[in-house]
Amino acid sequence: MIDLDPRLAADTHPVTQWPLSQVRLMDDVRFPWLVLIPDRPGLVEIFDLPAEDQDKMWREVAHAAATLKTLSGAHKINIGALGNQVSQLHIHIIARRPDDGAWPGPVWGVGERERYDQAELAEFLSGLRARLIAPGEGIVEEGLTR
Amino acid sequence: MIDLDPRLAADTHPVTQWPLSQVRLMDDVRFPWLVLIPDRPGLVEIFDLPAEDQDKMWREVAHAAATLKTLSGAHKINIGALGNQVSQLHIHIIARRPDDGAWPGPVWGVGERERYDQAELAEFLSGLRARLIAPGEGIVEEGLTR
Repeated sequence: MIDLDPRLAADTHPVTQWPLSQVRLMDDVRFPWLVLIPDRPGLVEIFDLPAEDQDKMWREVAHAAATLKTLSGAHKINIGALGNQVSQLHIHIIARRPDDGAWPGPVWGVGERERYDQAELAEFLSGLRARLIAPGEGIVEEGLTR
Repeated sequence: MIDLDPRLAADTHPVTQWPLSQVRLMDDVRFPWLVLIPDRPGLVEIFDLPAEDQDKMWREVAHAAATLKTLSGAHKINIGALGNQVSQLHIHIIARRPDDGAWPGPVWGVGERERYDQAELAEFLSGLRARLIAPGEGIVEEGLTR
């Protein structure tokens, strides 16, 4: 695995490792929020990846997004690749509800982060790990083609 | 072409039509900002598209992003699929600079939009149309693999 930017490492918890990306959970209980980090060194923009790896990355993003939407019962998924503050390429996948504190705006930079407590974190991580099987491993393809 | 959500239509100008997506320019002179709208009815989330069309969409997004970065001399490209306010699936591609008015935060909902004047708009659209050749048409593939 490549080295994570220290800020990404401090803000997120590891969930699982997929063929291309590290899947991590943003430590903010206000929003169910995954971050995918393609496991290749030196990436800043999505077009820094070879085209085939871009396809792989977006399929992983789509799978994470569909799974997170089902798991959270969210109204909408927000996807973003910004990188203005942390340049290491990472993709945000955020479950949004009309009653969350940032709706209908984006979540970045809004209010104060609230970290999970240990029990909540363990429970959510365990639910995520049970559902976030890598794309291509059985249950996943079914989810993608529904 | 599918019908555009009225708000998307009012906020953007048509640039060109690619195999999958309508390419449009956000009418806000503060940020060079493209919006890609996949030309399929009824889409809300990216995973509503069949997997092959997702690949096509993201390749179009990557090409638009790389071209916009070169054309604008931007420091970073921001990519986002939010859809909290306009549900019709659309992907934002925004050229960012450390001296723009929203840096390092996201641009959505920040400050007041400033529309292009007619001469600026005509010039920028003409520059975009000259560069935004559809992926697969010669010059583009070269740009993607550089």
